[in-house]
Amino acid sequence: MKIYNVCVIGATGTVGQMFVKLLENHPWFKLTRLFASRDSAFQTYQSAMQNKWRQTTPIPAEFAQIEVEVIDKNFVKGDLNIVFSALDSSVAEDIEPYLAALGLAVFSNAAAYRNHQHVPIIIPEINPHHFEAIRSQEFDPSNKGFIVTNPNCTLQAAALPLFPLLKLGAIDKVIVTSMQALSGAGYPGVPSLDIIGNVIPYIAQNEESKIADELHKIFGVFDKKTKVFDDYGFSVSASCNRVPVLNGHTLSVNFSICNDTPIELFEIDIIDLWENFTPDLGLPSAQKPVIYMKESNRPQPLLDQMAGNGMTVSIGNLRRCNVLDWKFTSLLNNTVRGAAGGSMLNAELWVQKFDQ
Amino acid sequence: MKIYNVCVIGATGTVGQMFVKLLENHPWFKLTRLFASRDSAFQTYQSAMQNKWRQTTPIPAEFAQIEVEVIDKNFVKGDLNIVFSALDSSVAEDIEPYLAALGLAVFSNAAAYRNHQHVPIIIPEINPHHFEAIRSQEFDPSNKGFIVTNPNCTLQAAALPLFPLLKLGAIDKVIVTSMQALSGAGYPGVPSLDIIGNVIPYIAQNEESKIADELHKIFGVFDKKTKVFDDYGFSVSASCNRVPVLNGHTLSVNFSICNDTPIELFEIDIIDLWENFTPDLGLPSAQKPVIYMKESNRPQPLLDQMAGNGMTVSIGNLRRCNVLDWKFTSLLNNTVRGAAGGSMLNAELWVQKFDQ
Amino acid sequence: MKIYNVCVIGATGTVGQMFVKLLENHPWFKLTRLFASRDSAFQTYQSAMQNKWRQTTPIPAEFAQIEVEVIDKNFVKGDLNIVFSALDSSVAEDIEPYLAALGLAVFSNAAAYRNHQHVPIIIPEINPHHFEAIRSQEFDPSNKGFIVTNPNCTLQAAALPLFPLLKLGAIDKVIVTSMQALSGAGYPGVPSLDIIGNVIPYIAQNEESKIADELHKIFGVFDKKTKVFDDYGFSVSASCNRVPVLNGHTLSVNFSICNDTPIELFEIDIIDLWENFTPDLGLPSAQKPVIYMKESNRPQPLLDQMAGNGMTVSIGNLRRCNVLDWKFTSLLNNTVRGAAGGSMLNAELWVQKFDQ
Amino acid sequence: MKIYNVCVIGATGTVGQMFVKLLENHPWFKLTRLFASRDSAFQTYQSAMQNKWRQTTPIPAEFAQIEVEVIDKNFVKGDLNIVFSALDSSVAEDIEPYLAALGLAVFSNAAAYRNHQHVPIIIPEINPHHFEAIRSQEFDPSNKGFIVTNPNCTLQAAALPLFPLLKLGAIDKVIVTSMQALSGAGYPGVPSLDIIGNVIPYIAQNEESKIADELHKIFGVFDKKTKVFDDYGFSVSASCNRVPVLNGHTLSVNFSICNDTPIELFEIDIIDLWENFTPDLGLPSAQKPVIYMKESNRPQPLLDQMAGNGMTVSIGNLRRCNVLDWKFTSLLNNTVRGAAGGSMLNAELWVQKFDQ
Repeated sequence: MKIYNVCVIGATGTVGQMFVKLLENHPWFKLTRLFASRDSAFQTYQSAMQNKWRQTTPIPAEFAQIEVEVIDKNFVKGDLNIVFSALDSSVAEDIEPYLAALGLAVFSNAAAYRNHQHVPIIIPEINPHHFEAIRSQEFDPSNKGFIVTNPNCTLQAAALPLFPLLKLGAIDKVIVTSMQALSGAGYPGVPSLDIIGNVIPYIAQNEESKIADELHKIFGVFDKKTKVFDDYGFSVSASCNRVPVLNGHTLSVNFSICNDTPIELFEIDIIDLWENFTPDLGLPSAQKPVIYMKESNRPQPLLDQMAGNGMTVSIGNLRRCNVLDWKFTSLLNNTVRGAAGGSMLNAELWVQKFDQ
Repeated sequence: MKIYNVCVIGATGTVGQMFVKLLENHPWFKLTRLFASRDSAFQTYQSAMQNKWRQTTPIPAEFAQIEVEVIDKNFVKGDLNIVFSALDSSVAEDIEPYLAALGLAVFSNAAAYRNHQHVPIIIPEINPHHFEAIRSQEFDPSNKGFIVTNPNCTLQAAALPLFPLLKLGAIDKVIVTSMQALSGAGYPGVPSLDIIGNVIPYIAQNEESKIADELHKIFGVFDKKTKVFDDYGFSVSASCNRVPVLNGHTLSVNFSICNDTPIELFEIDIIDLWENFTPDLGLPSAQKPVIYMKESNRPQPLLDQMAGNGMTVSIGNLRRCNVLDWKFTSLLNNTVRGAAGGSMLNAELWVQKFDQ
Repeated sequence: MKIYNVCVIGATGTVGQMFVKLLENHPWFKLTRLFASRDSAFQTYQSAMQNKWRQTTPIPAEFAQIEVEVIDKNFVKGDLNIVFSALDSSVAEDIEPYLAALGLAVFSNAAAYRNHQHVPIIIPEINPHHFEAIRSQEFDPSNKGFIVTNPNCTLQAAALPLFPLLKLGAIDKVIVTSMQALSGAGYPGVPSLDIIGNVIPYIAQNEESKIADELHKIFGVFDKKTKVFDDYGFSVSASCNRVPVLNGHTLSVNFSICNDTPIELFEIDIIDLWENFTPDLGLPSAQKPVIYMKESNRPQPLLDQMAGNGMTVSIGNLRRCNVLDWKFTSLLNNTVRGAAGGSMLNAELWVQKFDQ
Repeated sequence: MKIYNVCVIGATGTVGQMFVKLLENHPWFKLTRLFASRDSAFQTYQSAMQNKWRQTTPIPAEFAQIEVEVIDKNFVKGDLNIVFSALDSSVAEDIEPYLAALGLAVFSNAAAYRNHQHVPIIIPEINPHHFEAIRSQEFDPSNKGFIVTNPNCTLQAAALPLFPLLKLGAIDKVIVTSMQALSGAGYPGVPSLDIIGNVIPYIAQNEESKIADELHKIFGVFDKKTKVFDDYGFSVSASCNRVPVLNGHTLSVNFSICNDTPIELFEIDIIDLWENFTPDLGLPSAQKPVIYMKESNRPQPLLDQMAGNGMTVSIGNLRRCNVLDWKFTSLLNNTVRGAAGGSMLNAELWVQKFDQ
């Protein structure tokens, strides 16, 4: 199989580190270059990460000696095929189209282009056909380069459990309340004085609306004729909180299904759909997308964040809701599946299905 | 004014300590006796609390030398008027009716009798008229002794903010997601290995249904003729989580109002109702029941639990909900307003309004 | 008594807030002006502190409407008498001598001038006579303005317990290992990702040597003839660690005393010295400097930081050391006694004893 | 190579779980039986561990269906060769000699027999020759069964770094101050209300003296003629604290060496000894015993506990001490190297060197 040369831009931050970690021994991708801001550039990755590498395993030896380059418009494409972007949105906005214009496949964790009319937000198990949208992108006149994004981390803890339930009928109402981990805020992120022994009922401007908007887009359809995303028509309301957890976003989800059939729905029907939700993606990073835990006090971020190497959403506590129809708890590893792992899976999907 | 002799039963636990603390310098109540299990009895309170007193101020000097008595059926009433019960429900079930039968006014934080058809669950600002129910109690044939309870701590963070909004119309749907503090589990309570850096999506068997059931009762009417509580007819769904916070329960609340008038409701209309919610109870422990905080990242348990000496529910983040009508965050001091302080206020209300 | 007009410079940070809080209702000092960097200036203190005030009680109403001024060399003295400095050392280095030159009494929490040969580091119960040194300062030719500092917070948890033991003989060796709170790092300070569930064996460049150097100076003598500080001749070694505690530095202290008398020393002899260490300072902020706790698991920062309104060092666990002579645990409220409260006490001492 | 049949007694607790985890895929040991108290017995291990298994990886599939047996004196030896004991000392005291009497090799993490005159406390890299002592044990008249212990977890973070320094001269003074993790207290262990945001300057009765006593024994010599342990003659003083860390004990260590040579010692001399401390044990669980980290803020429990799969002590911050000669920070994984992993290594050593 063809090996793709990949780089990570924004390689020194929390998400950038996770990209580097996930690329160790990757069967399809060869990490050859690393980019960061001027502060970290012109030295080896090992040296740039002195006191910044915050993983419990060391920097992969194969990457430690790569010299970090500055990310700017003097970028030379060389033999690169794929860019993984861990940039802040404000920087991504300027740089990502520039890289796409060079003919590069840009897989971005940044929010900058998620609302763009021709940029898809992909979760491979849910909306792989949204890749179609990249043909309408105008970043690269030759139509080789493009931008594909993965969604806001939090919503994936709702999206992956809800998707297989569409077999039961349309989902029309979703209320999520999140308890989000600190790693989601990057580094240095939340000051310890603010959060030890505390809850902060606020994440960032637009976090709550982003969750609703992106869910609408992801569950929607890309209309091949009009080249436009047609949003899925449910009502979504998110309330977001920060809690003193290092990694792993926990969600409390309430939802309603329009079940047109006269057959009453039981808990086991929903749990069966989760257990049978086993799309055969055949991708190196793919895992079972969701698992259901029977213990009444699970999932928990401390114990369950590494389910499926961090790619699996753990679900628990399914029970009837007196207001909407059902409620459950879910847990997402926000740095793996919710960030770098999500983009990795998107890139793998593109390589396998769409790159001819 | 008459001074009432009071005792605390279950005086060594988390809630018992708070009763003792709140009774220091109380203008109406004189704490004369303290009761606990056999382990702690037959010694002074000071000595019994060695390594157990977990308040940041010392044991009130006036109570330190009281000799702790065993709580059992050899209880001698003496000149006591009022009992504050901080017992576990399993113990309360047996003892509280016995004390009521002795002619004592029992103000209980235990859940044992909250579902009893003639035992009211009182929040003085909301349903003081439920005191009427005690006349139908059969614990004391002479009808002097009775049991009055305060509600489950968590629901008060929803009940106090929602009550003044009834002026706008009936509330018909409420979804609450709680992030509850460790002090709510008593001592030793939650093991540190379970909760540091973690969230547990479970509190206790029936915690979620208790919140719904008790809200229905509190917002309902006590029918003087039939002597029965008539539940308030809204749908309530609670999802309860434990977070690594020492004290202070945070709630995310979504709700709908049946607003029959054609006038559109704005945020300021709701905030005005909260700011104008100033019942003049004239009780020593009474404070403004709710305050609204304008900062987008408040309330927070670490900073706001002591609002109104712990008797005020702090509210913030009022915003429209795409599924129900509105949503907000609220914070309750679960050991003060949510437990001992709630019972204290009930006893003060009884003394002022109902004890003739 | 004469009322002194005081200002706080660096009023928006962690220590600045504590100065403001401690000046509420102060009997001798009237806070009339507040200074900060350009970011916070030209608005009321209330407005400048939006989302920055991190105390559990609100901004004192009397100070909320003071307009914050820029701290720079356009400083106009007006009717000010005293300056409390909560500046970072790098800023203090430039500004404090300038203010002293204007004839102001500068009481500084900054480290910038602690090593200056004529600037004393004062702990009122230990070395009040070091005030003598200010006469040799050359900041203000008229000799009215001066700089007086309080020490590094951590060392006070060793200095105050060790000082009364000098009655037993010379202390010749001290080893301290600190477990320091997050508030000591200011705000935003330590990132939460670094410290939740963790220990960091590092505070700052020179933290450990500062502790030794300042202890030598404080326990030393100011020679009136040579105008030079003569260091106390003991060996001091500090090892400093950051722990996930919000406020309150805990120290493990080992020490040796040169006890020349043939009488064997018992624990009770040392504890008696601590209990009888009651200097009658007669100052508004003065409290018993140390207390000894008999419980074997005390002091603890969560429970004991507010002893003596945060001005008292709590000591516990005195026991023999197999290597040096004795060891104990001590706890200091690093934001009160260790910072703003220490400077406050110094200013009160100057007003009472030295300002004629 | 011969495969040894092993069992774990006390298999459901914190240390017991770690034994089970470490025995997965062990090349020499086959875990065939699991023992616990009556509460957990008579069901599969999977079922007994419902809500008790607190590892981030699942119960090894090969052990999940083993039926848990009661640990008592009806114990049938069967084809067992080795017992790993994770019992509490009070239970171990009675049971371990009984099992040794059956001819079993008992490798115990319990403290019950560490002071016994013929029971060695083994750290394979330090005192393997202490195995000699088991020949003097009288538990089993046939002299096949015996008890070997691993030491108190905390002291190993001092013992392993100090041992290679003996090449420089005798170590004569050691002061350690510990910051110990919560997993060291077992489960449920320390209540969360006691430790979140707090430090407790107390571990357990005798924790500090155990560290000194066991260090003396381990560094000492077993006299083959007198059959007695001859303690190493240094002075050791330990001060022990509990901190809110899940796993990993951090130590601050000060020590003196009697260096008789006239050559001055530099930091690099000590670091070299640590880097060259590579005993070739040839055991499956053996790793480099210590590593030195150059970053000034390391080691940290959150980042470094898994060094060498949890078998390596991480050292940092070596610097001169003004009171003793040197000081450093060290970190031990208290559940792996400090408990189950330590016993595992002892058993492997016995199999390889002493079982003929």
